[in-house]
Amino acid sequence: MARIVQKFGGTSVADLDRIRNAAGRVKRAVDAGDQVAVVVSAMSGETNRLVDLVRAASPLHDAREYDAVVASGEQVTAGLMAIILQEMGVQARSFLGWQIPLHTDGLHGRARIMDVEGGLLMERLEQGQVAVIAGFQGVSPENRITTLGRGGSDTTAVALAAAIKADRCEIYTDVDGVYTTDPRIVPKARKINRITYEEMLELASQGAKVLQTRSVEMAMNHNVPVMVLSSFEDKPGTLVAHEEVGENADMENEVVTGIAYDKNEAKITLVNVADQPGIAASIFGPLSEAEINVDMIVQNVSPDGETTNMTFTVTEADFDRAVAMLEGRKDELQYQQILADRNVVKISVVGVGMRSHAGVAQRMFSALAERSVNIQVISTSEIKVSVLISEDYLELALRALHTAYGLDATESLEA
Amino acid sequence: MARIVQKFGGTSVADLDRIRNAAGRVKRAVDAGDQVAVVVSAMSGETNRLVDLVRAASPLHDAREYDAVVASGEQVTAGLMAIILQEMGVQARSFLGWQIPLHTDGLHGRARIMDVEGGLLMERLEQGQVAVIAGFQGVSPENRITTLGRGGSDTTAVALAAAIKADRCEIYTDVDGVYTTDPRIVPKARKINRITYEEMLELASQGAKVLQTRSVEMAMNHNVPVMVLSSFEDKPGTLVAHEEVGENADMENEVVTGIAYDKNEAKITLVNVADQPGIAASIFGPLSEAEINVDMIVQNVSPDGETTNMTFTVTEADFDRAVAMLEGRKDELQYQQILADRNVVKISVVGVGMRSHAGVAQRMFSALAERSVNIQVISTSEIKVSVLISEDYLELALRALHTAYGLDATESLEA
Repeated sequence: MARIVQKFGGTSVADLDRIRNAAGRVKRAVDAGDQVAVVVSAMSGETNRLVDLVRAASPLHDAREYDAVVASGEQVTAGLMAIILQEMGVQARSFLGWQIPLHTDGLHGRARIMDVEGGLLMERLEQGQVAVIAGFQGVSPENRITTLGRGGSDTTAVALAAAIKADRCEIYTDVDGVYTTDPRIVPKARKINRITYEEMLELASQGAKVLQTRSVEMAMNHNVPVMVLSSFEDKPGTLVAHEEVGENADMENEVVTGIAYDKNEAKITLVNVADQPGIAASIFGPLSEAEINVDMIVQNVSPDGETTNMTFTVTEADFDRAVAMLEGRKDELQYQQILADRNVVKISVVGVGMRSHAGVAQRMFSALAERSVNIQVISTSEIKVSVLISEDYLELALRALHTAYGLDATESLEA
Repeated sequence: MARIVQKFGGTSVADLDRIRNAAGRVKRAVDAGDQVAVVVSAMSGETNRLVDLVRAASPLHDAREYDAVVASGEQVTAGLMAIILQEMGVQARSFLGWQIPLHTDGLHGRARIMDVEGGLLMERLEQGQVAVIAGFQGVSPENRITTLGRGGSDTTAVALAAAIKADRCEIYTDVDGVYTTDPRIVPKARKINRITYEEMLELASQGAKVLQTRSVEMAMNHNVPVMVLSSFEDKPGTLVAHEEVGENADMENEVVTGIAYDKNEAKITLVNVADQPGIAASIFGPLSEAEINVDMIVQNVSPDGETTNMTFTVTEADFDRAVAMLEGRKDELQYQQILADRNVVKISVVGVGMRSHAGVAQRMFSALAERSVNIQVISTSEIKVSVLISEDYLELALRALHTAYGLDATESLEA
């Protein structure tokens, strides 16, 4: 017997048939003797419908009212799920954020969870009832409905799992786990059986959008094992947990666990900036104040020692604003020109094994060099190496790296 | 300066344009210096969509979950209305039932309002803010969402008006007031400028579906003047209030205020029932236990003094059940046969003036006799006379009575 949280995303509750399918999974766990709390998203498309209504009402809307409107999507799914579970003979009731209560701060539209009161839910679970919780929502200190931002139901599920001391949190989605890389590009991509929180964070923030980053951080902080599973197939998924140590450690541990890519980057180069102290601060300070996140940065030493080229990446969404801001400060920054390139992609190899293995970056550079892929920018962290290349080479590079790091599936692995 | 509640029904908030139109009315009141609380229904069609989802989830569903799902419709409208008011420069925020709180009993799906806490709302109103309240919903003693049953937003509006000591409650709908009778049948029908609560109750329960009966009862009990108005036209509506007395009394007060009809009746006659003490109880007791409401009843004395014919009406919805029950008790009731007729209509003339004027019923009987309309059953109350006739004569009878009681509009009245 275990206490588990099962979370079903929008495509897993897209219509009544799919809610029934999800409810069937809940029932199987209950029948097996588990205590189950269920977290549901809005039915697929419903949140978009509600957001569109709010935007059409007013482009500049009160985020508190946005939350009141948009949170209704999860409310509907929670009620329907409870009804369908009851029809299957499973005792169940729905809980909204304010009924648990799930306390958040007052940052409407992207609220942060402050505290989840687990008492009422645990009481229910111990009586053999299933608690169906509307994801994505909480209640503010002012007693108003808040939402956690897109994908927030993952965070609800993990926070809840921590609050009710669940043995694990199961995230049901439309993929059957986390893959070594994008299977649409690399057919030999393998499902990863186990991955650490840190690796998952690197993969997720690099573009592998299976779990919301915040939910992974929260799971790591509260030591909640997370299983990513398909709601449509009965297959083992991917376990996201702390690194295994000691006897139980996986002997087959790969140096590189997965390879992510992010097409949502754009490169900006300021040519011939005066090479003087404080120049980086005067470029990146204003960008930071405008809440433009800068990702990769490289500064080339100039031959004459007087000027330098400063290259960095921002998201495509921030690109136009960033360029406009830099153009407006041309007198101050005294660069010669701005070179801009949106046709770039960032590829990152990720693995905790890098900490103890040398030559991981070198293998990446060689594999790309062999295929004449030019590396424009490099950045590294303890468990990650990222390179920026022309988007034209994405597929070629991804397949080459997947093979170079020994990640390709063999027939026996696939079976 | 007045404190008012403005309630907008489903057709008045059917889409964003109509919500804007309704918000325009709120703004005009605010600009005129009024304190305004707004009650909104779900957008037209939305409640049906949600009810259909619940029913499709399970025909036998938990009423508590039904309420959680269905109450979301008003939640969405309240948020959108607040956003649109803000865009118009009106300070506004939405309130859900649990936020006010509006306390109800635990009879989910048809909860009764126990207590409305007006303090928080009055504080807001006194600061010049508009409170937008989701109608139709409250919170139960178990802290769960309840709904008040169909049309419950009218009741929300009146209960709220009583709680915040409003000067009046304005109900905006798709008609411009209460009419002397159905204008689709009687083109000379006139809008009534002022009507008493008692008359409104008789008209409403007889089929003039402008205001929910419970809301009129509540308005009467709490002495809340209610205005019924069109949200699409700028016309004076109908004031529902206590009878005017003393100097201000309307000298033109008609004996009859309006004429209602109800096609939703069906007639049952038990022929040659034994005419013995207790026979009425043995017929109507079981019907009452089965929650079949009997409306009109007439018992004909038999020529022989040993048997009698018992005629009564039930709603069309209860008709089959009522007949089946009576057939099952044939041995006990010892009637000769059952005559059933669904092709009947009840016509009621209503007016507080009847209390002090004789001959009101006689004028009805004469007018119908002149047109050879056969009266099948008669029932009367202090301010009402009802007759059951063949449905074939509905239009003829309605027009004749409208003329007979001097209710026809003249050109000058219509202008």
